[in-house]
Amino acid sequence: MSETVYGVGVGPGDPELITLKAARILARVPVIAWPAPLEGDSLARRIAAPHLPGGQEEIAIRMPMVEARFPAEQVYDGAASDILARIETGRDVAVLCEGDPFFYGSFMYLFARLAERATVEVVPGVSSLTASAAMTLTPLSSRNDVLTVLPAPLAEAALAARLAGTDAAAFIKVGRHLPKLRRVLAQAGMAEAAVYIQHATMQRQQARPLSDLPEDYDAPYFSMVLAHRRGQAWTEAEAAE
Amino acid sequence: MSETVYGVGVGPGDPELITLKAARILARVPVIAWPAPLEGDSLARRIAAPHLPGGQEEIAIRMPMVEARFPAEQVYDGAASDILARIETGRDVAVLCEGDPFFYGSFMYLFARLAERATVEVVPGVSSLTASAAMTLTPLSSRNDVLTVLPAPLAEAALAARLAGTDAAAFIKVGRHLPKLRRVLAQAGMAEAAVYIQHATMQRQQARPLSDLPEDYDAPYFSMVLAHRRGQAWTEAEAAE
Repeated sequence: MSETVYGVGVGPGDPELITLKAARILARVPVIAWPAPLEGDSLARRIAAPHLPGGQEEIAIRMPMVEARFPAEQVYDGAASDILARIETGRDVAVLCEGDPFFYGSFMYLFARLAERATVEVVPGVSSLTASAAMTLTPLSSRNDVLTVLPAPLAEAALAARLAGTDAAAFIKVGRHLPKLRRVLAQAGMAEAAVYIQHATMQRQQARPLSDLPEDYDAPYFSMVLAHRRGQAWTEAEAAE
Repeated sequence: MSETVYGVGVGPGDPELITLKAARILARVPVIAWPAPLEGDSLARRIAAPHLPGGQEEIAIRMPMVEARFPAEQVYDGAASDILARIETGRDVAVLCEGDPFFYGSFMYLFARLAERATVEVVPGVSSLTASAAMTLTPLSSRNDVLTVLPAPLAEAALAARLAGTDAAAFIKVGRHLPKLRRVLAQAGMAEAAVYIQHATMQRQQARPLSDLPEDYDAPYFSMVLAHRRGQAWTEAEAAE
């Protein structure tokens, strides 16, 4: 059986930030699968849309927005079965993944179910991490910087502990955790040069200094804060190296 | 002056892992610039080669492989002047960057010199980080994992300290630091599931379990070790969430 399940990174949002390889695969597979909320659009499918030739079978992987484990398990089990059924009848399947499939993506839940039962190939994509840095002209890390990626839902003490020893930090999944991030960044002396970004590279993208955001700002889930210990001083510091 | 300096991420090595946006820009700019050692090929240019239309002016940014700061300063000063001279005569310039321009790339030294004097746009690219994870089918991070990117040249004690509190770690610039990484990973109980990768997505790519590498293995600079605290157990752990 040589049919393949492709985990295809479609990039951070701008359809032009997809790779040539991803676009080639999307143009030729007979079946695509994509994650979506219970109702409404799939972000991954929207990003991929300009690259889809039409006429493909589509598998929607609709996930209830609750944090219980059982619905999610059932949804991924069902999606894995649906995908395997196509593989067994000789059709390749591309699973669309926002950003990169293995960088905080939900693809790995499917991968865990499929890896032993089908040929899986992962096509890496541009992550929101580097897209946010590019969009805001904020260099992420250089030379021997330690870069730490911190999911904002973690406990405040854990975030503070990880921030203490890093040169550069990227907080992902910011959403309602914004006030907590402000506190830990202030405590670490990294608040001043921190940059807030939402929906990087999409039409509705926004970015500004964290310190300019209103106290009660309602950040969406797809948002990020980039911070650097050397703050704005990095240009001279690096230039002098 | 609306001419633009583009910092263009060309991706990790496979020319097909360049973005559509990067390919479009490379096809139309009259001038390209690329980093290279004093003698020999530019990796960034080699990756970009299939996407260059020919007939472009090329600026070589040749860097002596010594760690002193003064030659590097002079080389970047000279390159920035060369690039600005083209901008001032109405020509866009694309600077080719391996991987992503702001993820441990040398582009930021040019950026520091150009940002105040020209319009700069950064085109993010697929980094070797996610490319290595994809190539080895090693999920990098999921859910609320803390992911730490650690340059291998750092001191052993610093690496050990940062490794202690992270779920996932990526060591970059491995080269001659491989024995040190083995020690800190063993100490952290993360050696067993660690994966070693060199030249990810290039024709000469290689990957294997770190524990399978000979004791005296001669790792190149462009190599990486990915490690995860949960090791191979992640599949079941995540599937059960």
